[in-house]
Amino acid sequence: MATRNLIAIRTLEREKIQEILTIAADFKKRIRAGEDVPNLSRKVVGMLFFENSTRTRVSFEQAAYYLGMRSSNFASSSSSMSKGETLKDTILTLQHERLDGLVMRHKASGSPVLAAAHFTGPVLNAGDGQHEHPTQALADALTIIERKGSLEGTKVSIVGDVAHSRVARSNAWLLEKMGASVRVVGPRTLMPTDSSMLPGDFHYDLEGGIEDADVVICLRLQRERMLDGGISSTGEYASLYQINSDSLRMAKPDCVVMHPGPINRGIEVDDATADGPNSAINAQVENGVFVRMAAFYWCFGGNAA
Amino acid sequence: MATRNLIAIRTLEREKIQEILTIAADFKKRIRAGEDVPNLSRKVVGMLFFENSTRTRVSFEQAAYYLGMRSSNFASSSSSMSKGETLKDTILTLQHERLDGLVMRHKASGSPVLAAAHFTGPVLNAGDGQHEHPTQALADALTIIERKGSLEGTKVSIVGDVAHSRVARSNAWLLEKMGASVRVVGPRTLMPTDSSMLPGDFHYDLEGGIEDADVVICLRLQRERMLDGGISSTGEYASLYQINSDSLRMAKPDCVVMHPGPINRGIEVDDATADGPNSAINAQVENGVFVRMAAFYWCFGGNAA
Amino acid sequence: MATRNLIAIRTLEREKIQEILTIAADFKKRIRAGEDVPNLSRKVVGMLFFENSTRTRVSFEQAAYYLGMRSSNFASSSSSMSKGETLKDTILTLQHERLDGLVMRHKASGSPVLAAAHFTGPVLNAGDGQHEHPTQALADALTIIERKGSLEGTKVSIVGDVAHSRVARSNAWLLEKMGASVRVVGPRTLMPTDSSMLPGDFHYDLEGGIEDADVVICLRLQRERMLDGGISSTGEYASLYQINSDSLRMAKPDCVVMHPGPINRGIEVDDATADGPNSAINAQVENGVFVRMAAFYWCFGGNAA
Repeated sequence: MATRNLIAIRTLEREKIQEILTIAADFKKRIRAGEDVPNLSRKVVGMLFFENSTRTRVSFEQAAYYLGMRSSNFASSSSSMSKGETLKDTILTLQHERLDGLVMRHKASGSPVLAAAHFTGPVLNAGDGQHEHPTQALADALTIIERKGSLEGTKVSIVGDVAHSRVARSNAWLLEKMGASVRVVGPRTLMPTDSSMLPGDFHYDLEGGIEDADVVICLRLQRERMLDGGISSTGEYASLYQINSDSLRMAKPDCVVMHPGPINRGIEVDDATADGPNSAINAQVENGVFVRMAAFYWCFGGNAA
Repeated sequence: MATRNLIAIRTLEREKIQEILTIAADFKKRIRAGEDVPNLSRKVVGMLFFENSTRTRVSFEQAAYYLGMRSSNFASSSSSMSKGETLKDTILTLQHERLDGLVMRHKASGSPVLAAAHFTGPVLNAGDGQHEHPTQALADALTIIERKGSLEGTKVSIVGDVAHSRVARSNAWLLEKMGASVRVVGPRTLMPTDSSMLPGDFHYDLEGGIEDADVVICLRLQRERMLDGGISSTGEYASLYQINSDSLRMAKPDCVVMHPGPINRGIEVDDATADGPNSAINAQVENGVFVRMAAFYWCFGGNAA
Repeated sequence: MATRNLIAIRTLEREKIQEILTIAADFKKRIRAGEDVPNLSRKVVGMLFFENSTRTRVSFEQAAYYLGMRSSNFASSSSSMSKGETLKDTILTLQHERLDGLVMRHKASGSPVLAAAHFTGPVLNAGDGQHEHPTQALADALTIIERKGSLEGTKVSIVGDVAHSRVARSNAWLLEKMGASVRVVGPRTLMPTDSSMLPGDFHYDLEGGIEDADVVICLRLQRERMLDGGISSTGEYASLYQINSDSLRMAKPDCVVMHPGPINRGIEVDDATADGPNSAINAQVENGVFVRMAAFYWCFGGNAA
């Protein structure tokens, strides 16, 4: 059974995205009903988090666990990488230590591609630099389908630090492939200068950016952007781009509000909205587990029934 | 089956303490005899150690393992908390990542209460600030019952940095509820100024504090107390409050000596006593695993047979 | 069933080394054929890595997993050791927390002996200071046997920072016991001053050191050796001691090149050699898992069939 990698949404065919989403929805139904799911017993996946992310690691671990796999943690700070080992040698070592698959987060865009070149089993990208974060986009897509019935024709606005966000990129590519209408919104200093970096209409003010939107996806504001001049203050950012009951009046009344987390409450989104009826943030988190199960299953060669 | 939290001994009814201790003693008998214990199969408990404690984490992990549960580690330093996420959002994320229960250690007193407000499964307090450490108190209680037959009427002295110790507080409340006679002993600078913080007779010198005691529980001396003026030197502390063959002459001849660990040998207790026949330190450690099994079982809705 | 420790090759009888290698080869055959191996079910081994090593930890974890055991991680930085607890008390705690075995890496030579004195189950040394690293030597021996048919009479040169290398020491003792012809090679500043530290002929230049060699084992160059004056530059070291196509002309044409990792590419060995047909580096890594399985099995009382 051939294995597959999941590294980027941009290069993934629409049919394969649909297949993973179908598997995820099926797994969700089964897990919630207490029914069996496929068992990838005895397989071991390495969790290579060269950037910290407990949230994403726990989600992948849960997904592995539901499929009967063992996960093996590999924290950056305690690894041979800090002793000058090349990524290639780290990957070769894990290959020959008989890990069956790798989940990898790394600050360098493209590093999962390098890893995949030296690893025979599946490599799943859990976020690489400012490149992609495919399972987040899949979780968001499943959430939108649940709330809006379909991605086709759905108006989705992605708001915030678009230029530096792998979540924005993976989401925009996925949504565009699946027929959604995509807008990306943010201050000019946080927007890509090159419009080929991701699909979607570019907007620099929130009003036009989320007008009539079915879904708004807030992006996390990295505080370090203030230091490099991207924004002058989080307060100014919040006054112009925060999603709250005021700004949401421009969107559709049942507009779904999403955020990949971790949230800076009071900056990207206010408390009332994050915790209110329009918020699908908790659903995103839960769907993250199911799309990661589907991603593992698909990468290890499984197909939708 | 309704789940329960285990956050504080102070608010836990005597009957419930008795029930957990009964379950723990039963589990201990069964595990040691190689017999089966209940299987909470497929449940996953998050180990949220915002303060480091390998000792306590390993104990909870063993307890989870004996009950067939998976534990998922969540180290503070690598978490989203360091990215400014609120505790509420961290807990909501773990909830929706489908963890079934949480074990939590945190430097802020009361944080497990906050966690429990946002988590539907059980929350077990593994030590919160200077508030409580309920499973340590349960382990100590089981150990005293084994050595002395009962808590009722047993004379227990808790010696050391009482003011700052969550172990002291949980132990004192538990012992008082179960009918033991409790004394708390330490230098004035390390004793609570408010006698309502924990029950028991207050003593400021060791002689009166442990006279005729059945059990002495030494508390760990935090070295940082020297910096804030609580004590002038560990040597002076040791000369006045160390439990050793000399000071133990005041207690009953078969007085049991306990310590929650980690021990500062030569300060709170001397080597000969820590390793000698009166010491129940190793028994406390082992009983820690069994009371944590019982705590998990009880929190997930189990009852004594 | 009596348990055994695996702490040093120097004091291990030839017959026992042979037995562990036989078990490892058998496990390798079975695992690769998808056949069953013994199940040490319900046993828990603590992974006490007081020095970081993801490579070795993952290998031991895989070995434990294949044998049905749970491994429990215990990172140095988050442990009570940082609170001043003695190693003795840490070990006693893990003993009474009912761990069944310990794998231990520590910067202090001899610390596994101290651990074994306070722990009733097996203690496996995963590297202690500049003393020994027995499972690495066993992995290397299995690799040499696979490539050369036998250790008996095989000419093995160990090249590099011999003075500070526990790998060199464990390998030299093992090879000498098993009848190989051992040379140790390196600059005088990185060679032991006392020739009783390890067996083998001492060589200070590469030419005589690897002439006619069947196997060359490169040692990792610790960069900190430059700071203490052991070498003046990595470039100079590489020009004199690097294993590459040039220097390998002195050895036998089918000379096997090995390295315990992590590799400093371009220093101890060049890329072409590390990745070329003479390299057995990947085989060493894989055999590491099988010898660690064998070590666990043997330490828990198993014997070769």
